[in-house]
Formats: sequence, structure tokens, C-alpha cells
Amino acid sequence: MTEPKCDIGFIGAGVMGKNLILNLADNGYRVAAFDLDHHKLEQLLQQDQQERGEQPPRIMACNSYTELLSFLSPPHLIILSVPAGKAVDDVCYKLIDAGIGADDIIVDTGNSLWTDTVAREKAFESKFIFFSTAVSGGEVGARFGPSLMPSGDPYAWTRIKPIWQAIAAKVDAKTGEPIERFEPGNPVKEGEPCAVYIGPSGSGHYVKMVHNGIEYADMQLICEAYQVMRDILHMPAAEIAAVFKQWNDGPLHSYLIEISAEVLATKDSETGLPLVDVIMDRAAQKGTGLWTAVSSLQLGSPAPTIAEAVYARAISALKSERVKAATVLAGPAENVISAAEKQDIIQSLHDALYCAKICVYAQGFNLMKTAAVEYGWKLCFAEIAKIWRAGCIIRAVFLQSISQAYQRDDELENLLLDPFFAKQISKYQQNWRKAVANATLAGIPVAALSSALSYYDSYRTAVLPANLLQGQRDFFGAHTFERTDKAKGRQYHVEWNQTNRPMVKIK
Amino acid sequence: MTEPKCDIGFIGAGVMGKNLILNLADNGYRVAAFDLDHHKLEQLLQQDQQERGEQPPRIMACNSYTELLSFLSPPHLIILSVPAGKAVDDVCYKLIDAGIGADDIIVDTGNSLWTDTVAREKAFESKFIFFSTAVSGGEVGARFGPSLMPSGDPYAWTRIKPIWQAIAAKVDAKTGEPIERFEPGNPVKEGEPCAVYIGPSGSGHYVKMVHNGIEYADMQLICEAYQVMRDILHMPAAEIAAVFKQWNDGPLHSYLIEISAEVLATKDSETGLPLVDVIMDRAAQKGTGLWTAVSSLQLGSPAPTIAEAVYARAISALKSERVKAATVLAGPAENVISAAEKQDIIQSLHDALYCAKICVYAQGFNLMKTAAVEYGWKLCFAEIAKIWRAGCIIRAVFLQSISQAYQRDDELENLLLDPFFAKQISKYQQNWRKAVANATLAGIPVAALSSALSYYDSYRTAVLPANLLQGQRDFFGAHTFERTDKAKGRQYHVEWNQTNRPMVKIK
Repeated sequence: MTEPKCDIGFIGAGVMGKNLILNLADNGYRVAAFDLDHHKLEQLLQQDQQERGEQPPRIMACNSYTELLSFLSPPHLIILSVPAGKAVDDVCYKLIDAGIGADDIIVDTGNSLWTDTVAREKAFESKFIFFSTAVSGGEVGARFGPSLMPSGDPYAWTRIKPIWQAIAAKVDAKTGEPIERFEPGNPVKEGEPCAVYIGPSGSGHYVKMVHNGIEYADMQLICEAYQVMRDILHMPAAEIAAVFKQWNDGPLHSYLIEISAEVLATKDSETGLPLVDVIMDRAAQKGTGLWTAVSSLQLGSPAPTIAEAVYARAISALKSERVKAATVLAGPAENVISAAEKQDIIQSLHDALYCAKICVYAQGFNLMKTAAVEYGWKLCFAEIAKIWRAGCIIRAVFLQSISQAYQRDDELENLLLDPFFAKQISKYQQNWRKAVANATLAGIPVAALSSALSYYDSYRTAVLPANLLQGQRDFFGAHTFERTDKAKGRQYHVEWNQTNRPMVKIK
Repeated sequence: MTEPKCDIGFIGAGVMGKNLILNLADNGYRVAAFDLDHHKLEQLLQQDQQERGEQPPRIMACNSYTELLSFLSPPHLIILSVPAGKAVDDVCYKLIDAGIGADDIIVDTGNSLWTDTVAREKAFESKFIFFSTAVSGGEVGARFGPSLMPSGDPYAWTRIKPIWQAIAAKVDAKTGEPIERFEPGNPVKEGEPCAVYIGPSGSGHYVKMVHNGIEYADMQLICEAYQVMRDILHMPAAEIAAVFKQWNDGPLHSYLIEISAEVLATKDSETGLPLVDVIMDRAAQKGTGLWTAVSSLQLGSPAPTIAEAVYARAISALKSERVKAATVLAGPAENVISAAEKQDIIQSLHDALYCAKICVYAQGFNLMKTAAVEYGWKLCFAEIAKIWRAGCIIRAVFLQSISQAYQRDDELENLLLDPFFAKQISKYQQNWRKAVANATLAGIPVAALSSALSYYDSYRTAVLPANLLQGQRDFFGAHTFERTDKAKGRQYHVEWNQTNRPMVKIK
């Protein structure tokens, strides 16, 4: 073998893998790549050559795991971009068979369930170092700068850190704006990299999972605003696109608002209609949103708006039932909307979206806070907010404000209690209520906008109705209750079946 | 040993166990009972003697598992009422040590997670028959007639059936009303028993889990109506009690409405205040509600109102944060309500509660339907609705209508599509909207009422905004979408980065 050695082994040349490899190559790393589907490697090499002209190849396409290892010097560093689940284990065992050893590092960059990551680190600890890095940013992010959430063995991190910081998205530290340059061969070198060490094994994938839960809710909120404009205001797609484009210049400025405007402005090349009007309203999902909701339920850390977003996708999937139900189940009569009312409704939607978004982030960050306590991680929320400012799907200037909130107080009980956010949401809550009430009366479902508002109103209610609930529970199940005039933790029970219903102190 | 033999062994004399034992004894079964805490057995015998005077003992208090077995003839039938989780396994192993065999039956009546039940049936299959029966009804139900959801080995069921049908709650088949007689020694013998075989191992506990999920949502809905009356209408507890009492004579007629009225009408024996006003508004939970929500997320069967009810309890637990947030976060200015408006609001709350309740049951029954397909169970929903008419916490005449709906069509896609319920909800939906909009504008959280309404409105919307969502997903992640003008399942992708954004058919 007279081939030059490579710096990194890379397994999996799907959409994400291919773009990560090109990104690594742009940053000067020589990559030995393998994929079970050799055709994908050929496409990768072809794309690389097209982009760079006739320069010598910087990516080695390998025919086997063994060949891949032959291009690397020990201790080997191998990155995986394969589907979450069984495929990750399969590749790990193949690499063991091919001869990797205890000092070698395998980095999983897939959308793995974080508990699988924890289990894998343990299962493989005598064979090699299993490290993980959650990646956000889709294919463009992977190609020109993703947001990276690495976690696991600290020794492995020292080796991976310069690589991840090189390929990660970059942010202008002062403005919080992404520094974007989508040019092959000319990666962004300046700015703060969106790659910080999150914590012990699994924590990076957990944080990424919450990122995706927030993403689900953020997308659902945008969709609800869209539906109100489409179905109450009867605005055509292009007009709605213009509204989103305008919103993107204000506090809602974000990637998701930007691409919503772009999607809505796009014409279908086949029919000439607005593309969005020929896309089927049946949403798919890959699991990270529901994992987030499940974790929030299990940890008792309320994230209702994320759960509503997951359920909204599930209801959207029931297309044929919905088409039938639309003819059977009554809604309200339609009101005529004046031009002035229309502008008011659009403004109220804007404010509602902003307030609800604050609540979604409050839910997501508090979930991470609860998880950190539960699993013994030390998470730095100011840093996590920072690495989400660029590269990932939920990137937004908004995250600069969140990072500042946690810099002011890293023990912040809830984002809503930060002075900046408390002021913002207090200012706009009235319009938020109007938007929800309007849609409710008009028969347009706004599950996420209203769930976020209930979360806000519950959180700012000193006395909730759970006193009645505790009374009910004690009545039917002797579950006991606390009293407002006695010490916390003391439990009381009423003998409901006795005539004068005496109260008993239980403990 | 010259002691007479017993019919049933019973382990665990806590609140539920004690009452089940007395119920069994009332129905003529001789019970050998054991509890690690012998004091509980003494209390049990004492209560039995008090209730029955100087008659010979019909319950044997045992000092050990071995002694318990000595009172039984093989094949042994032993019922467990011990805390869900590890205690169930512990007792099973103790009984194996004490000598039970392959033909013996152990029936777990605790609040076990259904997957644990499935695992236990398998784990113990060579040692004895592990059968399970989920029990609802709290202590009074256990004592005078619970709702029983047995599942597992059909042979074991033939042995258990007469016992369960004897002790179960009974219903007047024609009216659907519970036949209740809370008299020790005089059990109800007539009527339809609330005990039917649900299906294979675990299915009974699954169905009970969904029952509890529905219960969570039902309770939360009542609490929200209570809070609106308390905090918008400023009604004292006794006046709200009167409203619930009146509602209990209409379509909302149910145990939970009845006891809500009773709790609200109860005075605190210590302060003389309405008891509800001294109960702390911090709700506890034992897990079955969150298990239901988790299952619905994992199966993709929307149950958002159940999830909101679980989250509402979690938010209620954040008492000190809420008290602080109440001083920081703004709400709307308060409106003065006229007497006429007050009556309108109360009526709209009634209608909202009724409609939302229909949606909660629709969510719960569809979840069981999805689970039945997923896990290969054949569930009879008409029968499940029937056994919930009495004995359990959610008992209500309402369940007679649900049973009839599934009798009309046992393949019903959704309860909302049944002609009776479609008509009811269509009639009252306008007031439901009013109630939600009112609370929303007034700053009172109505997470469950509004979540149910969003569910309703989503379900009856032929075209949801998920088309934009699919456009977003394809934009950032090449996740593809279907087209409304092409066959289902065909996937398309737009090359968003190219100038004219051509569309590609993926499969």
C-alpha cells in the first residue's frame, strides 16, 4: 500500500454523511469513506470533483471496513453517519471484527436515542471508545457548518474538538447572527464555532433530542399562524409568504420563518400552482419529537406544547378520516373580516407566535434542567443556547437573548422569569389571547398556540384548581392532601364516609 | 391442623386489599390473608367483626406464606394486592419458595404497568400461572363492587370468572345506572357484573391504564370549570358545589361530578372554611396517566387532552415558582361580569365540559383500538364501555351511550363519527368555543378544555396546515412529501437550492 494515510475514517455516505465528509475535506482533513452502497461513494467523489475541478482526490472511497482501517493510523478516529438503531451496533461489531482496539474512537453522529448512546458507551467500553455527537442542520448544515452537540469520554473530546470546531457553523459573537458562506472549498473560519462539549455520555443526544422537540413545536406554531391566514383571512400562499418574509425582519427572525416564506413563495414546476397547495397535508415524523414529549412526561417537566406538536402530526396523518369528519362534524358559521380587522389579526398572530415561542423554549430548557439533575449532568444552558444560534434548524437571533438570560443567572428557574423575557411576554400577551380566542371562535385548531398560552397562564397562577383535584383524589382513593395552613409535606385525609367528615393527619 | 380450608389466598391488606377481602367474604368466599405488616391483618379482622357482630371468623389471618398455603387446597388461587413494581415479583418468588406449583394461579390486582404484566406472565410460566386483573373503584369500589379488567390465561379465567362476577359492581342493564348498596354482608347480586375478560396477558392492565388516563383528563376538565367559576365569576365553593350538583342531573351525570359537588360542599372541621379552600393546590400522581400519554405518543394515536391533564398536575406541583411568577408575569385586566353573563358563562362551561369529555373518550377508545392492532389483541369496546358504567372512578351513564355506539358499529373509526355523539357535539360546540375564548381572554388556563377543542377542530378539518410542515421538512432535511394530485405513498422532493427549484420523484 503506497496510498497516503487519511486523518479520519467515515462510514455512511447518505445525505448527512456525504455532506459532513465534504465539509471535513473542505477543512483540510483527508477522509477514508465507506458505505455498504458503493454507488453512494461514487456519487460523493463525483460531486467533490465537480465542485473542485481536476485537483487530486482528497477522499478515499473504500471497499471494506478493513480497507478503511488500512488508510488510517492508530489510534483510529472513525465517524459514523448511519441510521439510528441497529445499524449503529452492526457497524461497531464490523469494526471490531476488522481490528479496531481500545484506544480507537468511534463517533456516532446519527439521530440515536440518548439512552441507546449511554448503553453503547458501556457495552463497548472494553473494545473501543464510543463517543457521540448529535448533529443538527440538515444537509446544508452538514455541508457548510452544522450545530454539533458532542458528549462522552473527555479524552476522546480533546482529539475531536479541533475537527468539530473547524467544520461547525460559526456565529458573529457580537450580533449572534450566523456567518454563512455556502461555497465549496471556502469554509467559514472566523467567529464562534457551534460546537461545545455538552457533558457525559448521552447528554449531547439528549440535548439534541430537546432541540428537535422545540423544532417540532416551532414548526407547528408557524403552521397554525399559516392556517389562520389561509382559512380565516383567505390569503393566497404568496401573500402569506410576504407576511412571513416581513416577520423575518423582526424578533421572529429565524431560519424556520425564512424557509416558510420561501416554501410559500415557491411555485410548483408541474402545475404552476403555489407548491404548498399541492403538497399533501399529512406530516411524517422520525421520533425525536415524541421522545422529547415522553421524556418530559416521565420526568414530570411540563412540555405540553411540544407534545401538542407531536399529536398534531399524528392527527394530520388521519387524512381520510378527517375528510369524512369534515362533512359530519359542525363548526361555527363564518364571519366576514374587514381589511382593518385583517391587519389586526395578522399582528395578533405575530405576537402570539413570539410569545408561544418563548414558552416553547422555556419548556425545552427546563426539561434539560430537570434531566441534568436526574441524570447527574452539569449542563451549561448559556453555551447550549449559543451553539443553536447557527447551523441548526431552530437557529435564530432569539437564542442570543436566551444565552444572555442564562449568563445573567445560570440557575434561572424558568426562562419566563428572566427580566427580558418576562417583559416581552407581558407586553404581547394581550394580542396572543386575541389570536387564540379568534381562531377558537372561528373553528381553526390552534393546539400549540393555545397550549403555550395555558402553560403561561398556569405558570403565573398562584392558586391553581388542583386543590379540588386533591380533594377528589382523597375522596375516591384516600390519596391524602396537604393543607395551605400547615407545613409542606404533612398529609391529611378526610373520612368522607362518616357523617361529619372528620380530618385525619396521616404523616 | 384442623382449621377449615379456605377458597382463596390473599396477599396484601392495604386500602384496596382489605376492602377486596371483605367483599370476597361478603360473597361467601373464605379467604386466607397475609400481609408483611401483621397489624393490617388485625385491623381487617377487627373491622370484619365490628361489621358482622359475633359470628365465626370467615377470614384467616396468616403469619407466613407457608401458613397461607396450608389453608388452601391445590390448585391454589392466590390474589395479590401489593404495590406495583418490585413488590409483585418479590411476593411471587416467596410463593415459589413456599411451594406453589404449575397449576396454581396468582392474580395481580395492583396498578402494574401492563408491559410488566406481560413480562411476568412469561417469566413465571414454568412456575405457575400469572394472571392479572386491573381493579378500579378506589376503596369503596373494592369493598362493595369494583370494575374489574381481567386478562391472561383463558383457563385461569374460567376459575376466576365466578368470583370476579360475584364481587364486581353491578349495573341495571336497561338504564345503565349502577346498582349500589353499600351494606356490609349484603352484596348486590342482581344486574350485569362489571367484569369481563379483556384479552391476552397485559391487555386488562392496558385498558385500565387508559381508564386512568381518561380519569386524569376528566378530573382536569372539572377543575378547569371550577377555576373559571372561582376566579372569573368569583363564586364561593358552596355555590359552585350547587352548580355541580345540578349538572349531575343532566348528561354530565357521573361519579366525578357527584364527588366534586361533595368535596366543594364540605367544610373544614378545623377552620370552618370550605375544605377546598384549605387544600393545597399541588397535585400528586402515581403514573398511570403519564403511562397513557406515553403510550399514545409512542403509538401515534392522539390523546392530547390526557397529556395536558398530566402536565397540568406537573405545573401544579411548581407551587413556589408559580407564586413568584404571579407577581412577575402580566395577565389581562379584569372585566366586570353581569348576572346574565354569569348564567351564560356557567351554561357554556357545562356544554364545554360535555363536548370535551366526548373528545377525551374518543381519544381513549381510539388509543385502545390502536393498541389492539399493534399488540394483536381483540378488544370488545362495547363491553369495555359497559364495565366502566359502575364500580370505577369514571363511571357515568355516558358510558351506556358509548357502549351503544360500539354496538352499532364495532369498527367505528372514532367516537366523534358515531351519529349520536356527532349530533351532540355539533349541537354544543358553539358554547364550548365561547367558554374557551372567555377563559383565554380572562387569563384563566384551560389546557384540557382547549386541547380537546383543538382535537375536535383538527379532526374535522379536511386540509390541515401540515402541507407547509412537509414543505419545511423537505426544505431543510430532504424528507420528501406526497402530492395531493398523485397516488398516496409516492414521494417527491424539491431541489430547493437550485434556482428554478425542480421537483424530483423519489419513489
